[in-house]
Amino acid sequence: MSVKNIFRGRILTLNLETARLPNGTSVELEIIRHPGAAAVVPVKDDGTVVLIRQYRHAAGGFIYEIPAGKLQPNEEPLICAARELEEEIGYRAASLELLTSIFTAPGFADEVIHIYKGTGLVPGNQQLDQDEVLKIVEVPLHEALTMIQDGTIRDAKTVIGLQLVSLQ
Amino acid sequence: MSVKNIFRGRILTLNLETARLPNGTSVELEIIRHPGAAAVVPVKDDGTVVLIRQYRHAAGGFIYEIPAGKLQPNEEPLICAARELEEEIGYRAASLELLTSIFTAPGFADEVIHIYKGTGLVPGNQQLDQDEVLKIVEVPLHEALTMIQDGTIRDAKTVIGLQLVSLQ
Repeated sequence: MSVKNIFRGRILTLNLETARLPNGTSVELEIIRHPGAAAVVPVKDDGTVVLIRQYRHAAGGFIYEIPAGKLQPNEEPLICAARELEEEIGYRAASLELLTSIFTAPGFADEVIHIYKGTGLVPGNQQLDQDEVLKIVEVPLHEALTMIQDGTIRDAKTVIGLQLVSLQ
Repeated sequence: MSVKNIFRGRILTLNLETARLPNGTSVELEIIRHPGAAAVVPVKDDGTVVLIRQYRHAAGGFIYEIPAGKLQPNEEPLICAARELEEEIGYRAASLELLTSIFTAPGFADEVIHIYKGTGLVPGNQQLDQDEVLKIVEVPLHEALTMIQDGTIRDAKTVIGLQLVSLQ
């Protein structure tokens, strides 16, 4: 395998990687290397879930998401999940249970998002970065599932996290 | 908004885009522009779903997925879904029903995947590209859901498609 680096930014690395496939074919692939991320479905004792409505330039506007953030170098996903939960929505969770770890776009990116269920929520300190523009939206879980069915919630990690909580 | 193009490849475009956020802040973002894709959950009359086990360099090995492929320029997602269904697993579907359209990674990419449920499956012609290395795996839907719960199925579009079919 050979790797030609095209770009190394604050978040993404773009490489042209020549990979040898199991059938013996060699192909050159455009590959995004990403540090990975952690996300939390925050579930209150009464079954309400805490979503954010966040401005995403790449999505062209505001979308519904669960709190999430990139892993720092060598950071445990659980630590990242707890940090992002508090910074983005101002809650700490007594329990963070790993639901799954997903590949978001394995055709071109190695990003993995570790998705947790957060329960036992108590108030903490919200601390948004200057480039985080979001509102907190609390809805009953069954309403969030309806928002998936009708296309209001379309973010992959958010759909998966909410559905896995509902299927437990 | 200003856009500085870094790379334009066969699949991906990477830009540095200066975006003005709703709070007035200007930020420079690393943004992947992607043509989008369509995917199909193929469901046989007896409730079996047809998955593929595909080699993905970015994921470091073989992963379970539903059939999917990139949109060609100006292609309708429904046409793309039908094409990829037949090329990847050798089935045509009498009915393709849109389940949802997801953002896979809206923090850095504009990729949208349109996910369909395919029913009324009849044999067609499988035609794999040289760089597609995959096996077909047919499993009952309830078993596929177990494979999500135990972490065997981890691809975002696949998890979402299977769960939406099961929740119908």
